[in-house]
This record gives sequence, C-alpha cells and structure tokens, in this order.
Amino acid sequence: MADGPSRGLADVVAASTALSDIDGRAGLLFYRGYDINDLADHARFEEIAYLLQRGTAPDSGELQGYRAELAAGRQLGALAAGDLPDIARRQRPMEALRSLVSLGSADDPDAASNAPAANQRKAARLTAQQPVLIAAYHAARLGRELPAADPSLGLAANFLQQLTGSRPDDRSAEIFDTCLVLHADHTMNASTFAARVCAATLADMHSAVVAALGTLSGPLHGGANEQVMRGLEEIRQAGGDPLEAVTTKVSKRLAQGEKIMGFGHRVYKTEDPRATHLRRMSGELAAAAGDDTYYRMSRRMEEVVLAEKGLYPNVDFFAATVYHYLGIPTDLFTAVFSASRMAGWTAHVIEQHADNRLIRPDSEYIGDRGLNWVPLDAR
Amino acid sequence: MADGPSRGLADVVAASTALSDIDGRAGLLFYRGYDINDLADHARFEEIAYLLQRGTAPDSGELQGYRAELAAGRQLGALAAGDLPDIARRQRPMEALRSLVSLGSADDPDAASNAPAANQRKAARLTAQQPVLIAAYHAARLGRELPAADPSLGLAANFLQQLTGSRPDDRSAEIFDTCLVLHADHTMNASTFAARVCAATLADMHSAVVAALGTLSGPLHGGANEQVMRGLEEIRQAGGDPLEAVTTKVSKRLAQGEKIMGFGHRVYKTEDPRATHLRRMSGELAAAAGDDTYYRMSRRMEEVVLAEKGLYPNVDFFAATVYHYLGIPTDLFTAVFSASRMAGWTAHVIEQHADNRLIRPDSEYIGDRGLNWVPLDAR
Repeated sequence: MADGPSRGLADVVAASTALSDIDGRAGLLFYRGYDINDLADHARFEEIAYLLQRGTAPDSGELQGYRAELAAGRQLGALAAGDLPDIARRQRPMEALRSLVSLGSADDPDAASNAPAANQRKAARLTAQQPVLIAAYHAARLGRELPAADPSLGLAANFLQQLTGSRPDDRSAEIFDTCLVLHADHTMNASTFAARVCAATLADMHSAVVAALGTLSGPLHGGANEQVMRGLEEIRQAGGDPLEAVTTKVSKRLAQGEKIMGFGHRVYKTEDPRATHLRRMSGELAAAAGDDTYYRMSRRMEEVVLAEKGLYPNVDFFAATVYHYLGIPTDLFTAVFSASRMAGWTAHVIEQHADNRLIRPDSEYIGDRGLNWVPLDAR
Repeated sequence: MADGPSRGLADVVAASTALSDIDGRAGLLFYRGYDINDLADHARFEEIAYLLQRGTAPDSGELQGYRAELAAGRQLGALAAGDLPDIARRQRPMEALRSLVSLGSADDPDAASNAPAANQRKAARLTAQQPVLIAAYHAARLGRELPAADPSLGLAANFLQQLTGSRPDDRSAEIFDTCLVLHADHTMNASTFAARVCAATLADMHSAVVAALGTLSGPLHGGANEQVMRGLEEIRQAGGDPLEAVTTKVSKRLAQGEKIMGFGHRVYKTEDPRATHLRRMSGELAAAAGDDTYYRMSRRMEEVVLAEKGLYPNVDFFAATVYHYLGIPTDLFTAVFSASRMAGWTAHVIEQHADNRLIRPDSEYIGDRGLNWVPLDAR
C-alpha cells in the first residue's frame, strides 16, 4: 500500500481543542494551560475532571458539588448491573466495559440529549461509574460481593477499596490519584480522536465513549501497559538473574527489529513528562513493597532501549509497575487507564458538540479501475 | 473556535483503500473498480459483501460457500439473545444494536484474533447477524416471536420476512437487495473512518464495528434517513395539500438558513449516483402501493431545494421512502443502513489490519497558556 502524504494522519491537524497541549520537543504537557508537572504534584483527580469537563479549576464550593455528583454517580444502572455476572463470565475486561457502558445508557436519563447541561451531567456520571464498573467486573468474575462504595473516600481511594476489598494506605491512594491525573487527557490520541469522530455526527456521549473504549483496547494504545507488565513477568518467571535476563532479551528483540512495548511516542521527541512522575512513584512503591525487582528490571530495560535505540519510556512503561505494586491485576491495567481517560473523552465530546463539524476525511484509492461486472452465470 | 486548515478533515487523505472510490465531480462511485450503476442493476448483496471482504467477485462455488457461511451466521449468540428482551424494552434501536454487537463478541470464537482468516470469518458472521439482530429487536419490543430464519432465502428477503412476519414479493426483495448493494461502502464516511481509527490500534473487529455503529447513529450521518421520513410525515399529517405544504415549509426553512436533511454531500458536487437508483425504486414502489403521496412530496422537495440552493438529494433522501414502502418502521431506518454498511465496515477493518499504522493526528491548541495552578485552599 502506498504511503500517502498523511498516512496515519501524523502531523495533520484534525481538530482544535482548549483541553490539552503537548510540546513534544520540550517534553511538556498542559491541561487547559496548566503544566502537568504542577498538576501531578498539587492537583487531585476530581479537580482535573472538573477542570477538563467544566472549563476552570473549581473553587471549594464547586468541588464539593462535583464530588457529590460523582458520589451519586457510583450507582450502576439496572441493565448493566443485571448483566454483570454473565458479562464477567464471558467477556475480557475491555470487551466487558464496552458492553457495560453501552448498556448503561439505558439508565442515564440524559442519554439521548447533546445539550451542554446534559453532557456535563453525563460526563460526571460516566467518570464516576467507570472505576465502579471495573471493580464490579472483577468482583463478579471472582464470585465475590462488590464492597460497598464509601462516600467519604475520593474516587481513587474508593476504587482501590472496591477493587481489592481493603482500605488503601493514604500514600498509595495519593499515588493512584496522581496516576489518574497523569492519564486524564492527551490531545488527539487514537481513542479521543475516535470519540470526536463519533460525536461529530452528533451521536450521543455514550456512543462516543463506547467507540473510545474499543479503540483504547488495542495493543498499540491502551493495551500497551498490560503488555509491558506481561513482558516483565515473562522474563522474571524464566528464572536466572532478572537484570541480566532483561539485557539479553531486550537486546535480542531489538536486534531482530522487534518493537519493545512502552517506548517511543509519535509526539514526544524527549522524555514524556508523565513517565518522569510514574518512574518516581514506581520506585517509591517498590521500596515500600520490599521487593523492587520489577522496578529494577524496568530501569535496566530503559537503559538498554535508550542506549540501543535512543527511545524514551512513554506513559505506559512505568504505569505498569505502579499499577502492579498497587495490587491491580495485570489484565485490568487498560481498564484502569480508561477510568482516568474517561474525564478527557467526555470533555472532548462536550467540546466537539459545542462547535461541531462532521469529521469526514478523504481516502486515496489504490485498487483496480474500470472493471466490468460479469453476471454470475458468466463468471 | 478558529477554522484550522483541515477542520473536519475535508479533503485530507486519511487512508489508502482498494475498496471504494468516488468521483465527486462526475457523480461516480466504484466498489473495487466496478461502477455502482452496473452493480445496482446486476449484482446481489451477497456478491458485493464477498467482493468487499474477500477481494474478488465470487464464482458460483465461492458464492455458494459464502451463502452457507451467512446462513450459519444467522444464529444469535447466547449472551446477546439472553439480554434481548431487556435491551429491546430499554434502549432505542441504534443504542440496542451497539449493545447487542458488543455482547455478541462473547459468542464469536474468533473474537480476540486479528488474523486474516479469523477476520474474514467474523466479517461474514457480523454481516449475517446484523439484519437478524434488527428483526429480533423489533419482535422483542412488540412481544412477538422472531419468525425463524429461512435458509432458502437470501439476506434481503429473509430480513424482510423476519422483520414483517410475511414473505415479501420477489420485486420488493430485489429492490431491498439493491438498497443493500447501494449502501454497502462509501470510502471514508464518518462511521467507516471511526472503524479504521479503532482498528488501527489493533483493536479487534467487534470493537471497530461497535465504534462504527455509534458513529452511524448521529443525525449528520446514518440518522439522516430517519429524519427525512419524519419530515415528510410531519408535513403530511399537518393536513392540506401535501405538495403545496412541502413548497411552503421547505422554502421557509431554507429562508431561515436551516438545513434540509437528505440534501448535499461533502464529496458529490452533482447527483449522488445512489440517489438516482433510489428515486427510481421509490417511484416504482409508490405506484405498486397505490399511494404515491410520499413519493410526489419527495419529488417536489427536491425541485424546491435544487431551485433555491442548487443542492442534490443524497443517498438518504430517497432511501427514506423506499424503506417506508417496504414496510420498515421509520425508527429502524438507520439500523437498516447499518445492516448494509456492515459489509463495508468489516472489509475496512480487514484492510486496515492487513497493513496497519496507528491513526493519531495532531490538534491545534486554542486555549489559555501559562497558567499557574493555585492549590484549592488558596482559590
């Protein structure tokens, strides 16, 4: 297939947005004009979801109201809740979330409306529900009761409690909250772009988010964090010195021209600023866990890939070990990414609907021309 | 919001494809090099689905095998079938199809594989199932039994029989088959593009098709045919001479700068070739029905819009009355569009997976810059 001038749409401007901005050369990321480094250190996820969905940093009254909306939104819809046991038994995590969110529109009173106020309410509900759906899915597949939501806890701590069944320590909850902040939005990544393509036909928010969930499930996008962890687990389980095994295995794969998951990014030409925070948190959790093997393996892997290919770790690389140390099952990593990105997806739908134009590109035709259709009996 | 150079990606080449090609100035459409006018007159939908998904016009042995695959694919999966009564009661048609196809992956043995052979098998199954899902949804919401599929009938005739409960006459089945041929593919329309953005992360075919279904549901895309019919129904029900009412109403709406659904297209600068066939079939069905009011109203509407705005009817305009005369409920028109476009969507996923590159555009940042995050207690 010929390489057209915009194959993969690299460097093509597909939309205007006031939500996030990347300076790929300098390694900077901004949400609505705020530096991600400031936000990682000083903002909570609920503030970021509000900032993205409603346009400004909330004051304490606004944040209190928004937290109350989120707490109310933790209630699952009847259609999704009723199907959960069968879905948990029959579908993989991202398949299940795609189905559960699609079913969820039946129980959202604003499902069919694209009005700004309806979109804001849905954005809050979808953001509140996504972590609960993940925890409920996990409980259902284990045949356990879902621990009740705790309205005194923020979204991050409540998720870890509903997922694992035990109260996270404060620092773990804070680290997970920072993970949610770091993953909340990232300009025209593939899943966000899919959500905007969908919303631009004036399809409703649930349709756009379901499109985004399916898109995130791919191994070249949200699936990468799970692949990173599976790669580390595989090397460690093979035995021998894990650091030497990393060097050998990664060098061999690079020599064979294979891609190493978790490295390189189409936009960043230096270190992804999110990776810097995730590396530090991974190290901190590793030390607290008393087993830093996966963290040291990751550091070795980044040394090898940087030396041999000049590639930097991206957001998925250290997110893998952070999630691992937080007790999140590996096959739920992509789902956890979706719990954060839901804040951004829904904000992009709001923005698209507010000033819409259909997204309908051209294609380059590369097939046969001028064929004559021969009726079946003469073929 | 500033108009970036590629707002809506109009005229931007986003992908290469050998599936379909449009000459918008000449009003020509081709599937794999065959003129749509030839195909509308001489090809059946099953041949077109095979052509798109497998690359060549089938010979009679190949077509026989493919028809057998389609007939076997009419069996609904257990998860979707079990949920059908609740979904039919609680979700609108396109919402329901989004949920049912998402649930359906649980019962597709190839769901998780993107291998070429698995993708071909899934493409056939999804194409076979879509019309059955629509008929089953309609039966469930009416509390009726779904009529059994008839393996002696092709996809078009079997759908009309399962939907309406009675055997269509041969000419009606043939006309509906031609509708399916005409809607099967259309380069980078928004739903197909959404499917490719999704598949380009190496997400699986069900995820891509679910993204496409949500995207098609929007009133600026697949929802247009339903809007066209509702517009006609509204004018007729208001009473008075329906042709004069069309002239008055449409002129008034155009004078107010409103858009008339079913007219104009980003790509065609002359008549959409599909509209030509659909107009003729609408006239034929109107004559056979003994009530050609909606057909005459449509003709009057196209005269007014052409005279006042120079816009031609698009594929949605005469599809509306054709579907109406075939006895399809108005709120299922977009769903029926999806039954045809499924052939194209699945073919595009096969093509994307066969030579993949992540689709990840840029965006133009138009928001604030250089803000300092003030901690909550100081805001």
